[in-house]
Amino acid sequence: MGLLTKPIETLDDLFVHTLQDIYYAEQQITKALPKMISKVGNSELKQGLSNHLEQTKNHVTRVERVFQLHGQPAKAVTCPAIDGILEEASQILGDAKDTDVLDAAAAAAAQAVEHYEIARYGTLISWARELGRDDCASVLEQTLEEEKAADLKLTEVAEARLNRLAARR
Amino acid sequence: MGLLTKPIETLDDLFVHTLQDIYYAEQQITKALPKMISKVGNSELKQGLSNHLEQTKNHVTRVERVFQLHGQPAKAVTCPAIDGILEEASQILGDAKDTDVLDAAAAAAAQAVEHYEIARYGTLISWARELGRDDCASVLEQTLEEEKAADLKLTEVAEARLNRLAARR
Repeated sequence: MGLLTKPIETLDDLFVHTLQDIYYAEQQITKALPKMISKVGNSELKQGLSNHLEQTKNHVTRVERVFQLHGQPAKAVTCPAIDGILEEASQILGDAKDTDVLDAAAAAAAQAVEHYEIARYGTLISWARELGRDDCASVLEQTLEEEKAADLKLTEVAEARLNRLAARR
Repeated sequence: MGLLTKPIETLDDLFVHTLQDIYYAEQQITKALPKMISKVGNSELKQGLSNHLEQTKNHVTRVERVFQLHGQPAKAVTCPAIDGILEEASQILGDAKDTDVLDAAAAAAAQAVEHYEIARYGTLISWARELGRDDCASVLEQTLEEEKAADLKLTEVAEARLNRLAARR
């Protein structure tokens, strides 16, 4: 948190700060996914990541809806965690010299992103409920379910096809 | 990956690189946890994080065992993802002005760490199996189960106590 942002004194402050953090994260993911999609070779992975890009744009809108329900302006704060996760993804995709190996690395990198979001949305939902904001929790739950489904789908594709193709290199 | 490290041409290269990444991550977590433990107020959270610190030291040793099984020297490569996740944890703990709110933030930060590890160990286990290294997969599975259990325990403590205490502030 920067020096000019509101100090975190209550659970409500923490909830709003973490909402600002995931708002930034979702925006960064919408910027990073197109590059990842352009690099992967496997059509099933490409399609899965493209579908998830569309979902992610909708997640941004849902976070804005939660800000609105909670009477707060939609605002992003820099999230060093997602910056680090995306930097690592970018490095590994730059270093992989074979398309099949790159596909296996890309699926794994996308799963690291999903898991960050699963952790954050799980926390936000618990805090929203504790704050008596079931309306906010309900919107956030829709996204959490989509993140979990995307993670499971990536595991399926990786274990059924990508890893096997990469292992032949 | 730095310019002087081995290029990633095969799934085996990717497996070893990701092992080096989690080796670094586990080491950074053993350095970060003591500071987090010293800051939290709730005794159950403090005890849980202390137990997890001991587990984490054991995870470092297990990664070394996998390097050994795989005939590779134990070597760490900088992992921007864990650096970002731990930087974010440090920021939020510095910004929380109330002990109960800090405890809720610390549990959430620890869950973000757990989820990164869950993603990485899940991937490493899949790749080890694909490479015919069930011996390595089996060692990594022990750690994955402990990370999942630690995450579940944090959810329980947060939802049963920490979040309620934080919401009264």
